[in-house]
Amino acid sequence: MKAIQDYYPDDLARCFGCGRLNEHGHHIRSFWVGEGTEARFTPQPYHTALPGFVNGGLLASLVDCHATGTAAAAAYRAEGREPDTLPPHRFVTASLRVDYLRPTPLGPELLLHGRVLSLSGRKVIVEVTISAGSETTVRGEVVTVEMPGSMRPASIPPTH
Amino acid sequence: MKAIQDYYPDDLARCFGCGRLNEHGHHIRSFWVGEGTEARFTPQPYHTALPGFVNGGLLASLVDCHATGTAAAAAYRAEGREPDTLPPHRFVTASLRVDYLRPTPLGPELLLHGRVLSLSGRKVIVEVTISAGSETTVRGEVVTVEMPGSMRPASIPPTH
Repeated sequence: MKAIQDYYPDDLARCFGCGRLNEHGHHIRSFWVGEGTEARFTPQPYHTALPGFVNGGLLASLVDCHATGTAAAAAYRAEGREPDTLPPHRFVTASLRVDYLRPTPLGPELLLHGRVLSLSGRKVIVEVTISAGSETTVRGEVVTVEMPGSMRPASIPPTH
Repeated sequence: MKAIQDYYPDDLARCFGCGRLNEHGHHIRSFWVGEGTEARFTPQPYHTALPGFVNGGLLASLVDCHATGTAAAAAYRAEGREPDTLPPHRFVTASLRVDYLRPTPLGPELLLHGRVLSLSGRKVIVEVTISAGSETTVRGEVVTVEMPGSMRPASIPPTH
């Protein structure tokens, strides 16, 4: 099964958080499931904060890239076209808010849920939660916008 | 010159963002300068978002650990004691807000400024900005709290 990030053209697939072509990255992969999105991520032992808990910066990074992936998936769906069609949707983050509801244990696989709160024009607002087992440990809200022209690689056609 | 993170006891110095003992981490180092704090960080080529720009998750991570370091430094100062005295201050993040004011270019060294917005009891709120050259590209606001007992390694005495 292909993740939304698997459809990103090569020049948009080098992100440290979610780029499949980034050798050093986190390789976050987001899937549309039901009415929202899911991603799974198992932190490495060195993704620690205090011993036994996951680093907050890493958790913010998971929220960030899962949100931009969710935004792209939602934008294709809103237009009734598949993510392998052109022009590609690729969202970047305008603002990120992350609430650490409780410490996230280091060890278990984490489950991310994404949900579109609003989609209008070039802006998509996404809620992302992170759960470890039955506990939701993180809630994020991310304002994403379609990649501006100033960031678009020359190989990529404009979306609008 | 020692960074605030250099004073963290070993069991509190393994953080992926700022732990000097984390082989795979970002090694963020924060210094008290004038009325606030500074840190410098040069992203690696693989810390990319879209080509030519720094990844937002990494920027959030820099904001996060520079804020908790600033909080610890401020807490020692408020008590009129040095950061090599016990018990150690170590703050964790309760919530993080990051506004990406403009794309952050990948290449130049980034300068982080931290400023304490409020300090009361176990909570310190910190503003962090990130600049590339003369441009401020990121503004963050971080609510940090003294490490709760549930996260404290057995080797570390309680702060209060």
